[in-house]
Amino acid sequence: MYNFEFYNPTRIFFGKNKIEVIDKNIPATARVLITFGGGSAKRSGLIDKIRTILGDREVIEFGGIEPNPRYETLIKAVDVVRSEKIDYILAVGGGSVIDGTKFITLASNYNGDPSDLLKFGFRSISLDVVSKVVPFGTVLTLPATGSEMNDGAVISFEHGKFPVMCELAFPRFSVLDPTITFTLPKIQVANGIVDTFIHTVEQYITYPVDAKVQDRLAEGLLQTLIEIGETTVAEPENYDARANLVWSATMALNGIVGVGVPQDWTTHMIGHELTALFGIDHGQTLAIVYPALLEVRRDKKRTKLLQYADRVWHISGGSEDEKIELAILKTRSFFESLGIKTHLSDYGVTADKIDLIVEQLGEHGLTALSETGDLTLDISRAILVKAF
Amino acid sequence: MYNFEFYNPTRIFFGKNKIEVIDKNIPATARVLITFGGGSAKRSGLIDKIRTILGDREVIEFGGIEPNPRYETLIKAVDVVRSEKIDYILAVGGGSVIDGTKFITLASNYNGDPSDLLKFGFRSISLDVVSKVVPFGTVLTLPATGSEMNDGAVISFEHGKFPVMCELAFPRFSVLDPTITFTLPKIQVANGIVDTFIHTVEQYITYPVDAKVQDRLAEGLLQTLIEIGETTVAEPENYDARANLVWSATMALNGIVGVGVPQDWTTHMIGHELTALFGIDHGQTLAIVYPALLEVRRDKKRTKLLQYADRVWHISGGSEDEKIELAILKTRSFFESLGIKTHLSDYGVTADKIDLIVEQLGEHGLTALSETGDLTLDISRAILVKAF
Repeated sequence: MYNFEFYNPTRIFFGKNKIEVIDKNIPATARVLITFGGGSAKRSGLIDKIRTILGDREVIEFGGIEPNPRYETLIKAVDVVRSEKIDYILAVGGGSVIDGTKFITLASNYNGDPSDLLKFGFRSISLDVVSKVVPFGTVLTLPATGSEMNDGAVISFEHGKFPVMCELAFPRFSVLDPTITFTLPKIQVANGIVDTFIHTVEQYITYPVDAKVQDRLAEGLLQTLIEIGETTVAEPENYDARANLVWSATMALNGIVGVGVPQDWTTHMIGHELTALFGIDHGQTLAIVYPALLEVRRDKKRTKLLQYADRVWHISGGSEDEKIELAILKTRSFFESLGIKTHLSDYGVTADKIDLIVEQLGEHGLTALSETGDLTLDISRAILVKAF
Repeated sequence: MYNFEFYNPTRIFFGKNKIEVIDKNIPATARVLITFGGGSAKRSGLIDKIRTILGDREVIEFGGIEPNPRYETLIKAVDVVRSEKIDYILAVGGGSVIDGTKFITLASNYNGDPSDLLKFGFRSISLDVVSKVVPFGTVLTLPATGSEMNDGAVISFEHGKFPVMCELAFPRFSVLDPTITFTLPKIQVANGIVDTFIHTVEQYITYPVDAKVQDRLAEGLLQTLIEIGETTVAEPENYDARANLVWSATMALNGIVGVGVPQDWTTHMIGHELTALFGIDHGQTLAIVYPALLEVRRDKKRTKLLQYADRVWHISGGSEDEKIELAILKTRSFFESLGIKTHLSDYGVTADKIDLIVEQLGEHGLTALSETGDLTLDISRAILVKAF
């Protein structure tokens, strides 16, 4: 096990009707900005319900934060935070709204050009750069990204997606009420399951460092997702299935699974390019890239793939190679069972676009990916070819 | 899954040589009280090392916090905190020192009779009762109680052990360096493994509420403990085994495993009486009580016991009753394999003492134990008889 540090001060309020807690968790005199996305939170009546709970507080709404939240949109919210002297922000939405809100609060308290904050990559922005923020909470509507309980965000700017990490970007609290997710379109639920699954394997199917606790936790989350996946897509109002999905999604990326282990975020990196170039949903891009990545990297990930085959899929027969083959196949089949296609060609991308994707990876400096930094553009190309 | 709330702001610094971080995490001008136990931290040179890291800070030492820390001892430290205007406390030790330090900091900031703080039981002490504390960090020397990453303590007063919970009692940070545990006596390591195991099952082998994530996490910790148990007792300097034990112990009681599920702390409650009456080590009392409890409560815990037999012990053959029988037997054998005896008679307690133990449970109001409150004194008696 590697040395590690862990810190996560977000308060979680989980379950039916937990939304009432926002009254106690936002100061009574706060001027509140509610951030949200395309309007479903408004149409469903959720925003109205929240405004009722907020009572006499001054409330300003900022909607229209798009999937893969864009810098240009968020900067408008920064202006509102400053001009309206906002004391507290409440993000109502999924990962994009929450990620966007993290950027809004950081940028609101940064004196330079806000685009500077996109240049830190996976390095945490220090308190010397941003020393305080407007506190914010979240009401989660879409289980997927784990953003509701971590301090990271991904922001779209020009033709790239940029990670932003800062300890001040932890939500003060997050309300996770599985019933709020009942009305989600099936495709979004399926995407969320894939996103959660991939977050977990990216922190697990790497090289072994004898981190038995973290491995078991990862395997536990994967087994849970496999067990509830089809049910929770098919039965939106199955509370228990949905509750386990919501908590899995949060647990997969709140830091617990990833402490002290190598991590391989290649799938997210390549996936981001597919979203940027072709508008493919984030979850779908992961389902496209990951099985192909495992096929290409099966020797490098051999030890963990065998453990994954054994403990997650309970594959006992056959040679080692056959076990690995079957585990990859079952992974792909799992995504397909949720209604998510796993080939690039399924999304209308033609083979001649591979050069463009590889070029974009190169332009964004993603030329040495994976847990060991040995995943070159040539290997990314091989993965994309396999992904067809 | 039940509704739940989760909050845990303790910073964890895990790994070799992480102790250096205390310099950055304690204000440079702080007047520091170092709390510790019987002196092993002093004899090993750990306290000297810490004083060197603390540099020019004013440091006062308060040693002698005993196992099952006593109110009378802790009150003396409260006087020191007040008279010496202590700004920061650093607890160097295991669960007893850390639990004691939690009480010291709460009591130092409570205006009434400090013994009032023992009357809240498992109800969290609110900010109306204690509104601030002297912040404290910990350097863990013994993996067992999980106190290094939670807000609970158990304090001995007169003839009882009293839980104390308060959100202000979270350590600000905890240093978990597995190499610090290399010099522990084997019996303490074995006790710590049992304590961690029991913390986990007390939050897991209850009645099912379809909390799949929590179940899998609990099963993961149990499997880890079973896998590393004998090795880490036999090979004190096996870093990986010890690292997995340390992190398991913390994870078992930092709240993650227990959110949204029923909990049955009967074994701890009965165990506390055995420690109070006969001075049996805490871990040993748990190893005595738990197998007997499972035998007596096998019907009530049937569903989860079958899941435990299947997922933790991989028992596949036989009838349901045989599977449960074997799972209980394997649990007992696991404790014995660590060198911990599992019968009351092994500790020189004679059968005529059962009445006394039951009487003490009655005096402490522990007449309706378990996750459903149906575990009467008669059932406690049956468990104690089985424990012989």
